[in-house]
Amino acid sequence: MHGEIGFTDLGSARVDTARTRRTGVPEVVYAAAKTLAQTEAVLRELYAREGFALATRIPTTEDGALLMARLPEAVYDDGARALRCGRWPATGRRVAVVCAGTSDLPVAGEARFTLEAFGHDVVQRSDVGVAGIHRLLADFGAVAACEVVIVAAGMEGALPSVVAGLVQAPVIAVPTSVGYGVAAGGFAALHAMLASCAPGIAVVNIDNGFGAAALAHKMLGIGSRCA
Amino acid sequence: MHGEIGFTDLGSARVDTARTRRTGVPEVVYAAAKTLAQTEAVLRELYAREGFALATRIPTTEDGALLMARLPEAVYDDGARALRCGRWPATGRRVAVVCAGTSDLPVAGEARFTLEAFGHDVVQRSDVGVAGIHRLLADFGAVAACEVVIVAAGMEGALPSVVAGLVQAPVIAVPTSVGYGVAAGGFAALHAMLASCAPGIAVVNIDNGFGAAALAHKMLGIGSRCA
Amino acid sequence: MHGEIGFTDLGSARVDTARTRRTGVPEVVYAAAKTLAQTEAVLRELYAREGFALATRIPTTEDGALLMARLPEAVYDDGARALRCGRWPATGRRVAVVCAGTSDLPVAGEARFTLEAFGHDVVQRSDVGVAGIHRLLADFGAVAACEVVIVAAGMEGALPSVVAGLVQAPVIAVPTSVGYGVAAGGFAALHAMLASCAPGIAVVNIDNGFGAAALAHKMLGIGSRCA
Amino acid sequence: MHGEIGFTDLGSARVDTARTRRTGVPEVVYAAAKTLAQTEAVLRELYAREGFALATRIPTTEDGALLMARLPEAVYDDGARALRCGRWPATGRRVAVVCAGTSDLPVAGEARFTLEAFGHDVVQRSDVGVAGIHRLLADFGAVAACEVVIVAAGMEGALPSVVAGLVQAPVIAVPTSVGYGVAAGGFAALHAMLASCAPGIAVVNIDNGFGAAALAHKMLGIGSRCA
Amino acid sequence: MHGEIGFTDLGSARVDTARTRRTGVPEVVYAAAKTLAQTEAVLRELYAREGFALATRIPTTEDGALLMARLPEAVYDDGARALRCGRWPATGRRVAVVCAGTSDLPVAGEARFTLEAFGHDVVQRSDVGVAGIHRLLADFGAVAACEVVIVAAGMEGALPSVVAGLVQAPVIAVPTSVGYGVAAGGFAALHAMLASCAPGIAVVNIDNGFGAAALAHKMLGIGSRCA
Amino acid sequence: MHGEIGFTDLGSARVDTARTRRTGVPEVVYAAAKTLAQTEAVLRELYAREGFALATRIPTTEDGALLMARLPEAVYDDGARALRCGRWPATGRRVAVVCAGTSDLPVAGEARFTLEAFGHDVVQRSDVGVAGIHRLLADFGAVAACEVVIVAAGMEGALPSVVAGLVQAPVIAVPTSVGYGVAAGGFAALHAMLASCAPGIAVVNIDNGFGAAALAHKMLGIGSRCA
Amino acid sequence: MHGEIGFTDLGSARVDTARTRRTGVPEVVYAAAKTLAQTEAVLRELYAREGFALATRIPTTEDGALLMARLPEAVYDDGARALRCGRWPATGRRVAVVCAGTSDLPVAGEARFTLEAFGHDVVQRSDVGVAGIHRLLADFGAVAACEVVIVAAGMEGALPSVVAGLVQAPVIAVPTSVGYGVAAGGFAALHAMLASCAPGIAVVNIDNGFGAAALAHKMLGIGSRCA
Amino acid sequence: MHGEIGFTDLGSARVDTARTRRTGVPEVVYAAAKTLAQTEAVLRELYAREGFALATRIPTTEDGALLMARLPEAVYDDGARALRCGRWPATGRRVAVVCAGTSDLPVAGEARFTLEAFGHDVVQRSDVGVAGIHRLLADFGAVAACEVVIVAAGMEGALPSVVAGLVQAPVIAVPTSVGYGVAAGGFAALHAMLASCAPGIAVVNIDNGFGAAALAHKMLGIGSRCA
Repeated sequence: MHGEIGFTDLGSARVDTARTRRTGVPEVVYAAAKTLAQTEAVLRELYAREGFALATRIPTTEDGALLMARLPEAVYDDGARALRCGRWPATGRRVAVVCAGTSDLPVAGEARFTLEAFGHDVVQRSDVGVAGIHRLLADFGAVAACEVVIVAAGMEGALPSVVAGLVQAPVIAVPTSVGYGVAAGGFAALHAMLASCAPGIAVVNIDNGFGAAALAHKMLGIGSRCA
Repeated sequence: MHGEIGFTDLGSARVDTARTRRTGVPEVVYAAAKTLAQTEAVLRELYAREGFALATRIPTTEDGALLMARLPEAVYDDGARALRCGRWPATGRRVAVVCAGTSDLPVAGEARFTLEAFGHDVVQRSDVGVAGIHRLLADFGAVAACEVVIVAAGMEGALPSVVAGLVQAPVIAVPTSVGYGVAAGGFAALHAMLASCAPGIAVVNIDNGFGAAALAHKMLGIGSRCA
Repeated sequence: MHGEIGFTDLGSARVDTARTRRTGVPEVVYAAAKTLAQTEAVLRELYAREGFALATRIPTTEDGALLMARLPEAVYDDGARALRCGRWPATGRRVAVVCAGTSDLPVAGEARFTLEAFGHDVVQRSDVGVAGIHRLLADFGAVAACEVVIVAAGMEGALPSVVAGLVQAPVIAVPTSVGYGVAAGGFAALHAMLASCAPGIAVVNIDNGFGAAALAHKMLGIGSRCA
Repeated sequence: MHGEIGFTDLGSARVDTARTRRTGVPEVVYAAAKTLAQTEAVLRELYAREGFALATRIPTTEDGALLMARLPEAVYDDGARALRCGRWPATGRRVAVVCAGTSDLPVAGEARFTLEAFGHDVVQRSDVGVAGIHRLLADFGAVAACEVVIVAAGMEGALPSVVAGLVQAPVIAVPTSVGYGVAAGGFAALHAMLASCAPGIAVVNIDNGFGAAALAHKMLGIGSRCA
Repeated sequence: MHGEIGFTDLGSARVDTARTRRTGVPEVVYAAAKTLAQTEAVLRELYAREGFALATRIPTTEDGALLMARLPEAVYDDGARALRCGRWPATGRRVAVVCAGTSDLPVAGEARFTLEAFGHDVVQRSDVGVAGIHRLLADFGAVAACEVVIVAAGMEGALPSVVAGLVQAPVIAVPTSVGYGVAAGGFAALHAMLASCAPGIAVVNIDNGFGAAALAHKMLGIGSRCA
Repeated sequence: MHGEIGFTDLGSARVDTARTRRTGVPEVVYAAAKTLAQTEAVLRELYAREGFALATRIPTTEDGALLMARLPEAVYDDGARALRCGRWPATGRRVAVVCAGTSDLPVAGEARFTLEAFGHDVVQRSDVGVAGIHRLLADFGAVAACEVVIVAAGMEGALPSVVAGLVQAPVIAVPTSVGYGVAAGGFAALHAMLASCAPGIAVVNIDNGFGAAALAHKMLGIGSRCA
Repeated sequence: MHGEIGFTDLGSARVDTARTRRTGVPEVVYAAAKTLAQTEAVLRELYAREGFALATRIPTTEDGALLMARLPEAVYDDGARALRCGRWPATGRRVAVVCAGTSDLPVAGEARFTLEAFGHDVVQRSDVGVAGIHRLLADFGAVAACEVVIVAAGMEGALPSVVAGLVQAPVIAVPTSVGYGVAAGGFAALHAMLASCAPGIAVVNIDNGFGAAALAHKMLGIGSRCA
Repeated sequence: MHGEIGFTDLGSARVDTARTRRTGVPEVVYAAAKTLAQTEAVLRELYAREGFALATRIPTTEDGALLMARLPEAVYDDGARALRCGRWPATGRRVAVVCAGTSDLPVAGEARFTLEAFGHDVVQRSDVGVAGIHRLLADFGAVAACEVVIVAAGMEGALPSVVAGLVQAPVIAVPTSVGYGVAAGGFAALHAMLASCAPGIAVVNIDNGFGAAALAHKMLGIGSRCA
């Protein structure tokens, strides 16, 4: 096998403790389909090995509070539905997180929380969808100055196309499941983003704010390795 | 039954000769799935009764030429794949026909040809998609001054949302089947248009340039009746 | 940028306070995916700026009552699941709102409430589906005399095709999610409406009664501008 | 096993020679995915055993002519793309075959040809779709007097709902693949027919004119057995 | 218009009181998306006019009990989730209702209850799916002797094909939403039934036990009219 | 009919008591859509006839406890949501049950429980997905030595392809409904498994752990019969 | 890595020359999307290394003839659209290949040709679909005596369920793309097979006759290893 | 508007001549749905303005030859179906282009050709799919040393997940339309890539080799700007 390997066998989980060294991104706990005990055990193991652990999709606010009480250095963010133990050193790198509507905020929050846990700075803009695009353009300079731009949008998912036509930075598009009728579930936004006429847009799974942040982090690694 | 009725039975077709008086839009021949003889027969009957006839989706340029040779007052437009016998009196009303890419031109052409056959003026803009939205805005005043704006777009179908955020006029969105992968067939654009965050967009079937023009014509009827 | 711009930044929302002047339709609050506090804040800001505010898809009757108690000039309509603060001046224009079955009433109600908030008169017909089309035709004159006809239907969504074959006015078709099996979710009705053999039908998203009303309002603008 | 059984093994086909006695409908050759030799062999065997044989979906007019030349008592109908050897005795029973548009004629033709091969009389109406429903109602008495009504329609597939609201006879709905955009392939019509608000509609597969006729024939069997 | 017409306007419903005379099947209340008050009002009106009323998809057992207490001659059947006021005279006609698995019983029950309300006799077989087809064949004679055979099946929906290969009577196939994975929602069964290699199968919407019974009733009408 | 037949008629179920002798796999109770009383009755009958009975998809832990209390020799496994009465003799045959993530454990558990009830030994590995494939390879020898390998995976469902490229044994792939966005419901995993570039993978329905085990058991029958 | 590895790099292909030793099935050339030169080169390399090579989906009869002329020990089978160089020693093991209709023969042929190339005996039955199931049962003993049963079926795909209810051997179901309307492309058959109520059916991709044969071969390996 | 703007109006196209300065990627001609004359005109204009022009999806080899003959500095690559006029200066940056099967080469070629036109170096690996993953690992070092890794795969699309678990660089996944049955059209691969359990994968539209290259180029811009 290529790269560093290693894992801890917890019975129901084999924790990939070498993933950060191998891929630059640690194993992160997807808590939605795990018991609270399973989530806690994996977080504890990861933190013990690496001094850092992250969980997304904490099912309820109560679960978040419970985990925060039990785990060392834990910070739970209700808007992001995510929790971290520890934080990586500040990098001074800047990533924009833009979302089309107020309803996209939980997904944007997951991206922001992850980026900040990885040590990056975030420039956030909310509710700047294409029906009133002047709301985005009013103070666009700070967004355009970021090294990567994450754009979360549901419904027709048009915002990434517009943004990608205006910036040098790579755009990561996150479709959200916000909407009803043909937009329900996020497929209308997903397909719009994949079909965009603006070249060079990276698309991730519906509602995958964490994935967008992990991708942005890997992109920034290009810059840091070239230093 | 409500309204004026009447028809001519040609065997394989019952030509609805009272449709203009009843609904404001004449029966129009959808030639794609008809034999040339069937198309010619219905056009001839419509022209005889109303002094006007229109056919869309002429299968080939050769078919268009043949029909033009055989029918009175016939004009065939290859870019629109459509043919008319006669034309309604000029109304001086203005409709914009905007399309996102060069590949959407056949659909936009069908809309333009139909509107002109119905007597209206058309303001056309082509290849002004959202990846370089300044191409639309450069001379947008003439578009914004139209009473109705038709926007044809394939791929991610984002242009109608942007336009609808900028004008008073109702926007009619026509998804086109231009694109590949998730955009193939036009469903990505269709869903984006239906899910638009900009309120008040009228959507028609994929590639239905004629339907968009017929709808615009019925909208203009509101204005003329109120005069 | 084209047109009037301007917004208020409330943190989680950038309220597009110039949208009425720019597009003829105000920013309207889609309350389904917002917290009650977010909905209230945006309504308050819109009303302060324009003397009018509208919210649709209020999640519960209790939410509606709470908002009505807190906001100035607020009227909540349970059948429409919508709330308005203020009302635009009466126009005397008439729009028909027809629905195929009793189960389509909430969607039809959202359209009616929006139209009335915008100052228009509404002619309503309910439960007049095609299985007994004489129920529609019995007193059809008042419908046919309207300037725009909105038709909401679930299941097979055939009613707009029939109506569009009988009237001069543009028909706006609203598919509803009423039905089970192949009709569940509203796609059967949506596709039937888009594929209609009756030309000139405007289609909006599934259950989008507000969008139908906003489109009707923009259509009526054609008439008022031509005065 | 229940009922009469028996077959002839031709190698690539096991011809079910007892099917008529067992189910009332003979094995019929679906020629679309067979070689001409396979089609001819099965027809010859069926005719030898039962004095009657039927093939549908003959790929080309040339194939039809060739089979007609080689097989005894063969009649090929180009409009129906079908061929029969022999014909069952006349029954005097009447079935209506109604189609919405000229483009649905091949499917309606397959139904008509099959019914006539089975000995029944057919009352046919073409191009009587819902956009001008007066074309159907003008001479509807003969349709309403039939014992079974077959309705073929593509696009939005609304015609069966309207017909089923007007007649005592069972309605068999055949969706056709006529149309483009959301109607392409016939699923919009299929779903509309299954979701119909008019109770008691029998639906068959898209373009399955033969299946509609076979079902009508089995329905008529109820009447003949009760004699 | 063709046939007998007439209705009672209850505000939210226009009750089609002439439907039985026009089509042979009365207007039936689909209670799933109505308030209890709406359901009760329509049932009361139908019973007052015709001495008979039927409602399907009563949401809960409590609703059924309440309606039974309030309405004259009301009988509620919990297994069928349906209620009738009155019953049509016995006809002595026999319809088979066969279902593939125990889980299909509610749909089969709706069909049986409707048929019995219309005065017909029902021969029922349950849990006789194709994985052990001998369970169907063991006492198949009584099924084969029926004038119409209704077959309800979920999962792979294969039972109607097998039955239709064994009987003279028309087979009405009802796909049910029973199953998980690819079978969830009933589309696998629906498509299997429409694609059946056994000719002459009538298909109705997923879970539509009432529709199957209404169709069977209309089929039996062929026989009674020919008497 | 071929093979041994026989059944017990319990009214709502015809229990196929000869299925083991005919097909090697007993009738198993799918409890998800049955009442507790129905499940209990069928289990009791099966156990009385064969000394063995198995039920899957017990809706709740409470139901499992209740059935365990009432039925002879009953063992309920909460992780597998399954219950057995009795157990077949030990065979000494070994089947691997591998799952990609912790969230796939319930499906893997259903497979393991069924295999053990049928008398086989199970080698289990959990949380060894392709993002850290070294976790699988670390102790792969025991897996590779099994006669059949069952692989359960949700999300992108890539693990069966990788495993099938490494072992002689047939691989049975079970897609799970674990995931969100495009993975929700399990279709992404199902399609990936069917489209695998590694030949000879057997695929079963989404979440169908029991089916995978039944198939493995039938495969092992090949070996035992050849002994 | 686990198992034997090794490959030959031909530039556009890396031929996996160790696959037989590692997995029991050789790398097989899928010729549909390769140039004739690419197919020939890989076959030549495989044959040179292992004395055996197999290609499926040869695009045309001419391609097959050309390859047969150029390659050593080559046998091309037009009905199977496949070619082999060499053949593995006869095993005396028996696999049944059953298909529902004449149109499924190409897929069944691919399975038969592959099995014979691997040295196994094949018992074939064609055109024995469920509409006349007595055609299968007439001489079913030879099928039931096979160690594995492959069943290919298009349209409603019901045959595997019926067969799996009658035999001890594992059943491998191959959906075919035969059919029209809802059956077009093979998804109706695929879903029916995955949703089968008969436990223990292995499903492979649509039209994947080779995959079914490879799976059967791996299953037989269980028996041979246990000897 | 933000950023540099400007365009040339060619009638059917508005060439966005400022796109490189605004977004880092030039307007590129998608030739599939354009006439040869339209493609030539836009290329000529772009080359005149920027000294560089690129076209993808040239319909035929003949078209490529014709364009190469007519345009200055033109290089046509048949394997990539692409043409460039000029080339950007060499950057010395390295991008890996890995594809799963020989059939994915045209898509991989489009990515490679675009990257080389933009001045980057490409490390290519072909036919290294997961069924024999040792073919990838044999000389993986050169791939792992690249700054960005593009992975093209059809069928089950599993390769990007495996690669992303092994490298530090961001992985761009390109689903291809290679495959049949459930894989036809590329959706199985697309969904697998979006649902990947390996975090930080960027996905582009099906067959979009150019988009992958444009995204890689924008990612490399992060590194060059940080220098």
